[in-house]
Amino acid sequence: MTKIRVGIHGAGTVGKRVLEAVSKQDDMEIVGYTKTKPDYTTEYLSKYDLYTEFPENFKDSNVKVEGSLEELLEKSDIIIDATPKNSGYKPLYEKYGIKAIFQGGEKEDIGVSFIAQCNYYNSWGEDYVRIVSCNTTGLSRTLYAIDEAYTLGNVNAQLIRRGADPRDSQKGPINQIVPVIKKGEEVHGHHGPDVKTIMPDIQIYSMAVAVPTSIMHLHMIQAEVKENVTEEDIIELLKKTPRLRLLKHKDGFRSTGDIMEYAKYLNSDRRSDMPEVVIWEDSIKVEGNRVMFYQAVHQEAIIVPENVDAIRSMFKLMSSEESIKKTNETMNLKE
Amino acid sequence: MTKIRVGIHGAGTVGKRVLEAVSKQDDMEIVGYTKTKPDYTTEYLSKYDLYTEFPENFKDSNVKVEGSLEELLEKSDIIIDATPKNSGYKPLYEKYGIKAIFQGGEKEDIGVSFIAQCNYYNSWGEDYVRIVSCNTTGLSRTLYAIDEAYTLGNVNAQLIRRGADPRDSQKGPINQIVPVIKKGEEVHGHHGPDVKTIMPDIQIYSMAVAVPTSIMHLHMIQAEVKENVTEEDIIELLKKTPRLRLLKHKDGFRSTGDIMEYAKYLNSDRRSDMPEVVIWEDSIKVEGNRVMFYQAVHQEAIIVPENVDAIRSMFKLMSSEESIKKTNETMNLKE
Amino acid sequence: MTKIRVGIHGAGTVGKRVLEAVSKQDDMEIVGYTKTKPDYTTEYLSKYDLYTEFPENFKDSNVKVEGSLEELLEKSDIIIDATPKNSGYKPLYEKYGIKAIFQGGEKEDIGVSFIAQCNYYNSWGEDYVRIVSCNTTGLSRTLYAIDEAYTLGNVNAQLIRRGADPRDSQKGPINQIVPVIKKGEEVHGHHGPDVKTIMPDIQIYSMAVAVPTSIMHLHMIQAEVKENVTEEDIIELLKKTPRLRLLKHKDGFRSTGDIMEYAKYLNSDRRSDMPEVVIWEDSIKVEGNRVMFYQAVHQEAIIVPENVDAIRSMFKLMSSEESIKKTNETMNLKE
Amino acid sequence: MTKIRVGIHGAGTVGKRVLEAVSKQDDMEIVGYTKTKPDYTTEYLSKYDLYTEFPENFKDSNVKVEGSLEELLEKSDIIIDATPKNSGYKPLYEKYGIKAIFQGGEKEDIGVSFIAQCNYYNSWGEDYVRIVSCNTTGLSRTLYAIDEAYTLGNVNAQLIRRGADPRDSQKGPINQIVPVIKKGEEVHGHHGPDVKTIMPDIQIYSMAVAVPTSIMHLHMIQAEVKENVTEEDIIELLKKTPRLRLLKHKDGFRSTGDIMEYAKYLNSDRRSDMPEVVIWEDSIKVEGNRVMFYQAVHQEAIIVPENVDAIRSMFKLMSSEESIKKTNETMNLKE
Repeated sequence: MTKIRVGIHGAGTVGKRVLEAVSKQDDMEIVGYTKTKPDYTTEYLSKYDLYTEFPENFKDSNVKVEGSLEELLEKSDIIIDATPKNSGYKPLYEKYGIKAIFQGGEKEDIGVSFIAQCNYYNSWGEDYVRIVSCNTTGLSRTLYAIDEAYTLGNVNAQLIRRGADPRDSQKGPINQIVPVIKKGEEVHGHHGPDVKTIMPDIQIYSMAVAVPTSIMHLHMIQAEVKENVTEEDIIELLKKTPRLRLLKHKDGFRSTGDIMEYAKYLNSDRRSDMPEVVIWEDSIKVEGNRVMFYQAVHQEAIIVPENVDAIRSMFKLMSSEESIKKTNETMNLKE
Repeated sequence: MTKIRVGIHGAGTVGKRVLEAVSKQDDMEIVGYTKTKPDYTTEYLSKYDLYTEFPENFKDSNVKVEGSLEELLEKSDIIIDATPKNSGYKPLYEKYGIKAIFQGGEKEDIGVSFIAQCNYYNSWGEDYVRIVSCNTTGLSRTLYAIDEAYTLGNVNAQLIRRGADPRDSQKGPINQIVPVIKKGEEVHGHHGPDVKTIMPDIQIYSMAVAVPTSIMHLHMIQAEVKENVTEEDIIELLKKTPRLRLLKHKDGFRSTGDIMEYAKYLNSDRRSDMPEVVIWEDSIKVEGNRVMFYQAVHQEAIIVPENVDAIRSMFKLMSSEESIKKTNETMNLKE
Repeated sequence: MTKIRVGIHGAGTVGKRVLEAVSKQDDMEIVGYTKTKPDYTTEYLSKYDLYTEFPENFKDSNVKVEGSLEELLEKSDIIIDATPKNSGYKPLYEKYGIKAIFQGGEKEDIGVSFIAQCNYYNSWGEDYVRIVSCNTTGLSRTLYAIDEAYTLGNVNAQLIRRGADPRDSQKGPINQIVPVIKKGEEVHGHHGPDVKTIMPDIQIYSMAVAVPTSIMHLHMIQAEVKENVTEEDIIELLKKTPRLRLLKHKDGFRSTGDIMEYAKYLNSDRRSDMPEVVIWEDSIKVEGNRVMFYQAVHQEAIIVPENVDAIRSMFKLMSSEESIKKTNETMNLKE
Repeated sequence: MTKIRVGIHGAGTVGKRVLEAVSKQDDMEIVGYTKTKPDYTTEYLSKYDLYTEFPENFKDSNVKVEGSLEELLEKSDIIIDATPKNSGYKPLYEKYGIKAIFQGGEKEDIGVSFIAQCNYYNSWGEDYVRIVSCNTTGLSRTLYAIDEAYTLGNVNAQLIRRGADPRDSQKGPINQIVPVIKKGEEVHGHHGPDVKTIMPDIQIYSMAVAVPTSIMHLHMIQAEVKENVTEEDIIELLKKTPRLRLLKHKDGFRSTGDIMEYAKYLNSDRRSDMPEVVIWEDSIKVEGNRVMFYQAVHQEAIIVPENVDAIRSMFKLMSSEESIKKTNETMNLKE
């Protein structure tokens, strides 16, 4: 079998993780990655080929530059664009006639919005796909499953966002809660509208705040359903849904800190990441037609398996079920 | 006019603030306050008489002990119980035949639940009244006004709680979001049920998390109303409701930090406190029958004026409107 | 007596505080202040005249613009430059022939470095004076007193910096300790060299980190002295030194949080500020010729009284002792 | 070769890490571990045998209890006591006649203080050894090397402590800096005296604060040396010293956050831990006879390899150099 040749454009928080995930797949291979300047991740990445638009930045380092971005594009069947948002590289990918996957920071119309377990076949054979944001992915994985089984009514999704990523020493807030307020938009925060790129008919009302933490977003969800349902039904449903992980408050999972601590002691290949959505099983409550629960999302990792599956859909390699299964196994994810 | 003689039992975060608020009223006077041991607040409190159950703790200090707790009760018409929750002093107050006001940490049945602008007359002539918690007070002031004007349907109230008070150096969390989960309770968090002690018929669904901040709780509210309403209607309504303060994100109020900074530059008698609920005016949105907005509550200060008004109701001193007006003027609160 | 006409250029964290401090002096008057755009502080400042370089920013506000920056300069005898660092306005002040006080962010050679109780007369009659940074002011007030009394040897000053100011919702760090490292400089951090602008002969070695807090810097000081000294000597010395405040850990001052809480309950005119350096009295230790203690600095407030005294020195209004006494009395500072 | 049979008493932050490190050694084997109640780590530990003093706590769990603590002691040659400090189990170990290793929270006289690269042979054949605290280990590894090479004079060691561990959701502080003050002690903080248990003749003066972070302590060190030395000398010395890792600020290591991020991308067997002391290479400065630098310590991991080496010393298995090399290789530590 010919392997899909994958280039990684931008080896930061997302890029380096997708690179490692792709490198574990037997139907894909890493052609190379890009960076704009050397930093401490170049040590870890040293077994892969570096391409760059800024070779002069690497002159004084001992990192070998293999070639330019365009040379990487020439050698790749598909590029993972993990550059900062609104990067504007799409025309260049078109010039080289290669497929591309963008991340959630890009505008909605840059490609087909993708979450493997919700709309895998929307991207079947497509050239441009957008992996939606970490929060949108987290909300959709759960809500899609509930909608399929019990038909959603109005959904309230309130988000508590981590203020900065763990390696960002500049960003706050410190000792503040910052509400996400944008006058004139349909809802507060982009998550409501963004979920609609995956589930067009959902009635979702989202609000969000940012707080002084660096690990995991947390979602407070209240979803109305149109069919009768019990707490046990919801638990059973979510347990069998891929890439969700139900953990119990009574087992000591009191906070996002406990979840990330737990992640350290899962298979060490996971590198302390938590690509699954984590739902507090014993927070699931049903009152009348209202389903309520808390869930947490590891913002750095949740979208990584989605990138892998999107490649398979775009190249029509296998079915949704097969791809999700294969990605989960290679990444040691919960089935 | 004879002044109501008020004793303050416990001069911590709440007690010292109520003491100062009462001392500004011409129909009340402070008889004295209690502390269990000397600390840095005794300097500020030195113009008031100290009573204590633990006189030996003050032996090596230069603070004069005026008498015992029971001596304070003997001299008081009413006692403000600002001791830690479940203090168990009620039988002692009964023994001395004096009225008492408890704070929100106490069980619901210890007295009549009170918020001046919602149910002032429920406490008319009563002996035992409970000022409800800061979050309950904040939710009720706003929701009661909307209910009176437009009749509430289902209400979602999601709370982001500050982890610790500004002077508490022991309590966390650090870098964690902690969901409030208690299996088997009607809702997550006590705020939903607690609001029902003020508004018995409300359909409220609350969830809550604690975060690493020390100033202000923040509420994300989505309330269904049964009558047609516009954003302008809600703004006008809340502007004329007592003890709410509408501020705008576009004027630079981006966070709870900006609100507390603003509080420093209001009348200096307020000591940087914010006893009003603060609502982000330009976060108010109406979609269909759903009213959405963010509000913030200064956990240390919001219940202080309620204590003053409760005294007046319990002694049948004046009408609700008169008491709220008088308290607001003396405390320099927004009308 | 003719009052000195003072203009405030920049009414942010420092500017608004200096404005209020100057307004309490009977030998000075506020001519006006500048802002670049309206925000929530304009309400507090509304009793003063606003001048601005950007009148168009105020068109849609209800704030009256009195005139341009140059019109303010024309009416002022001296301008307090509280603009962001490296503002570059000095040539404009020279053009208008008025005196100016700069703040600690400016380069050392912009004016004479000033701390009232250390080198008041260096600025006597001068046109351009620089109030040194908050940390430099805090270090110098203490170290100068010890040097005068006991002659300093080598001094170690390790600083723990607050990451952001209370109203800054953008800046971090979150969950990180950030060392201040600049290769090739004489010392780590600018505080060592900056203290030498006040005490040229001091041998000081400073290091610094930034941490996720918004209130107060904390200094860990180890100072060698050349004369015999006891802990009691140091306590007595610091107690009689102006603008230092000795507080005890055993009285409940366990952290910077306790200090700022205490500040709220000092004279309400102080608006919860702490312009004095706070030294933990019971942390003062002497081992051999080494004096060790912890002190804390309220970064927003400590330099405010210095601005007032600098005006008096620059206009040769009165002696150092008289000015410090007058400023302390009007600002309700500890003698 | 008969393997040393190791029991782990307490499988918390330290215990579970030592268990995994010991399990990688071919001259040792894990007999079992203890817990007091089930929690989320029991899943990870499920391939090892559980012993407990509280079997009733495990009745409702699906964790198999193998036996009591005393049964574990009976089967072990040595016990790693990783219970909370002042646990008081030493008499029990004596009853069973087995060796024991205690951790840094225990009193100094419970056993011989140990750091492999400083005083390995002090514990040769000993029955009771104390692994010193994380900060003491971090300070001693560096200072011992400098002392051996250049003879230390006075040392200033100022510590910025993380407030709580990553899984501790209760502990603070929030938005506070908390100085470590204990009147009457020889120095501030226990680190100075504790380093003397390893280096009895060192003249060290330590101070410490706690801050709102959960990852890594940071040390600001200023050490006088008695011989001439250059920055290059110090860098070369520390580079060849075991279990130190020199990283550069200019390579993007701006904070403790960057270090822990880097740790995630080292060998995945390390589970994102950083058992080496990390020194910012480009913060190393020499002024006269004074050596200055910043270093960081991963409080959860640094003492883990010390436990492994201590076992070898106590059973006289091999030389210091051989043990350190073997432990480093099996744990994938920097030589």
